[in-house]
Amino acid sequence: MADRKDFPKIGILGGGQLGKMLCQAGADWHLPLYVLDQNHSYPAANYATVFMRGDFSNRADVLEFGRKVDVVTIEIEHIDTAALHQLVAEGVAVYPQPDKIDLIKDKGRQKQFYADHGIATTAFELFAGAEEVRQAVAAGRWAFPFVQKARTGGYDGQGVAVIRDAQDLAEKLLPVPCLLEKLADIDKELAVIVARSPSGEMRVFPTVEMEFHPTANLVEFLICPAAIDGDTNARAAGVARTVADELGIVGLLAVELFLTHDGEILVNEVAPRPHNSGHHTIEACMTSQYEQHLRAILDLPLGPTDLLRPAAMINLLGAEGHAGPAFYDGWADLLRLPEVYPHLYGKAETRPFRKMGHVTALGDTVAVARARATQAREAVRIISHAGK
Amino acid sequence: MADRKDFPKIGILGGGQLGKMLCQAGADWHLPLYVLDQNHSYPAANYATVFMRGDFSNRADVLEFGRKVDVVTIEIEHIDTAALHQLVAEGVAVYPQPDKIDLIKDKGRQKQFYADHGIATTAFELFAGAEEVRQAVAAGRWAFPFVQKARTGGYDGQGVAVIRDAQDLAEKLLPVPCLLEKLADIDKELAVIVARSPSGEMRVFPTVEMEFHPTANLVEFLICPAAIDGDTNARAAGVARTVADELGIVGLLAVELFLTHDGEILVNEVAPRPHNSGHHTIEACMTSQYEQHLRAILDLPLGPTDLLRPAAMINLLGAEGHAGPAFYDGWADLLRLPEVYPHLYGKAETRPFRKMGHVTALGDTVAVARARATQAREAVRIISHAGK
Repeated sequence: MADRKDFPKIGILGGGQLGKMLCQAGADWHLPLYVLDQNHSYPAANYATVFMRGDFSNRADVLEFGRKVDVVTIEIEHIDTAALHQLVAEGVAVYPQPDKIDLIKDKGRQKQFYADHGIATTAFELFAGAEEVRQAVAAGRWAFPFVQKARTGGYDGQGVAVIRDAQDLAEKLLPVPCLLEKLADIDKELAVIVARSPSGEMRVFPTVEMEFHPTANLVEFLICPAAIDGDTNARAAGVARTVADELGIVGLLAVELFLTHDGEILVNEVAPRPHNSGHHTIEACMTSQYEQHLRAILDLPLGPTDLLRPAAMINLLGAEGHAGPAFYDGWADLLRLPEVYPHLYGKAETRPFRKMGHVTALGDTVAVARARATQAREAVRIISHAGK
Repeated sequence: MADRKDFPKIGILGGGQLGKMLCQAGADWHLPLYVLDQNHSYPAANYATVFMRGDFSNRADVLEFGRKVDVVTIEIEHIDTAALHQLVAEGVAVYPQPDKIDLIKDKGRQKQFYADHGIATTAFELFAGAEEVRQAVAAGRWAFPFVQKARTGGYDGQGVAVIRDAQDLAEKLLPVPCLLEKLADIDKELAVIVARSPSGEMRVFPTVEMEFHPTANLVEFLICPAAIDGDTNARAAGVARTVADELGIVGLLAVELFLTHDGEILVNEVAPRPHNSGHHTIEACMTSQYEQHLRAILDLPLGPTDLLRPAAMINLLGAEGHAGPAFYDGWADLLRLPEVYPHLYGKAETRPFRKMGHVTALGDTVAVARARATQAREAVRIISHAGK
């Protein structure tokens, strides 16, 4: 396979579920897809044309990997971007571009970018560390409640602290370079995924509405279309397009938005890659986010993003009290439900609340899709017989 | 991967495009899928969890392969079924069941089965060879035109001769055990795919209408829904269900039908596996034929088969005059078309009229879908730079 010349060789940094689903999208065109991650137990390992063992945060590994392919992309931001800059210098196409990844990885620079480009976001201030935050609070410049975000390294709810009172300030503050944000007066959390190609062609996916798990701080549920009016929808899509275009990103950009009770749309943060909030596009949209990302980074025409059916997506999490080799109890019960599309990531071991898969449910209405998604999650338990 | 116990290990005999698409369907659940075929250049090789080199028509190879898995299935009928009978005796689940494959592989036994079960088919007679056919014609028992079919070994239009006159009788008759059939007075050729599980649960896919290439004797175009009235549709589905149930097959059964100008529905032949006439189910139906086959052979509940959008499917064939490593000229032009879903099989070399892939096009109407499919085929040329 490695000597094929009909399509450029694509290298994906990261072999998690997003990498796996990129590989699945590439399978329809039989694309030559290389994946780099630590070992063969990762979800994408078996679905890559060529899987290479290595560490995407290690410079030498990324360089060696990137030199074997024609186009490099990512499924996670936490990679060694110095190696990506070097690959660009050597003539390898890298999408998203390394400087965009650098900017997005640093939540401080990301917020400053919104401020500099007139893109509405929550009020914020950058700090060197926890001590400086405490001084700002003592000086009366910041009042409870507020959100502290680590500038780098955050993922899936990690690196974020909500500081509601003096006790939180004493106990929960992260001791790292950070930014403070005012708590937005949030009515809904929305997400809009945009694809942008090297030529500047853009396509916007339908707005989704996210609901978070009350304690785990993970997206639990997403529905599409979002329950918002046409004007709000158009403004959300417009903001997402503006961010993608001002950034000049190539590939997907997932734009997380707050809709306030005043009807204002604020950018929360972005991810320059396929995103959890776009899983449903596999079944619910004319083109999936995964195929769209491949089209964009290959400089091919982007596909239509129309929603075919109302959709609801839930994550399938490891059951509490179970750790070890995963079993999917109730699988037949789940499959008895109509228009329920489960995706398992093949992670070798389950752990409590670990993302082991997701289900997209479709229906004539969002309410039907959502009820089916809920039934699906209730039907299946991801357990281990290794002991509780 | 090989030591996973969360799902049964599935072994697929044959690594062609149907095997590849079975693997793609299994990827959503991260199923452990083993594939046997001759070498890594076969379409499914890279999409199997474990690809094993071997010959599915070789007894020892099939036995060795089958003993490594829990459930054996096929993507082609031309396999060593004696090995499959042996595997069943050893406790391996084999679906479709070996005796059903034996019956279907022999077109003579297949026709006799229809006759024995009151299932309408074209009038036929079995012959030991070409000489016996000539005697029957000389004796006035068979009159031109008629169709001669080899009892075994036919595939994709091979093993079939249309005998229109004395010259055809002299030159085209196949020198093998065969059956003669009257030429049906065909209005349309239809296909209905049924899935049946071990428990007897059945689901029928919407009827498709097939159009054949005028010279290559390959299905060129299929459209769904077929342009037939509701009563004809119900009768076609009923015939397909009857055949599947009388056979007691487990897995998919693709039933090819003739609709005569008198409105009669005749069974032409069946295939106990995913079928070319079901490619469009990947995008156009609630459950794809590939996932449905996996559900059936794993004794899991079958999925709904509703058509989501009108569909047209065409094969992508190698351009005339080109043989060698394949290039897909015009790929960007193809991708500019909306709701056009290309599938490439990754065959290393193209040859004139070789099936290199297919395109499913969707639309609000069959006419729109069909126009898009035609545009797609016109956009892309599968060529080789190895010379003409």
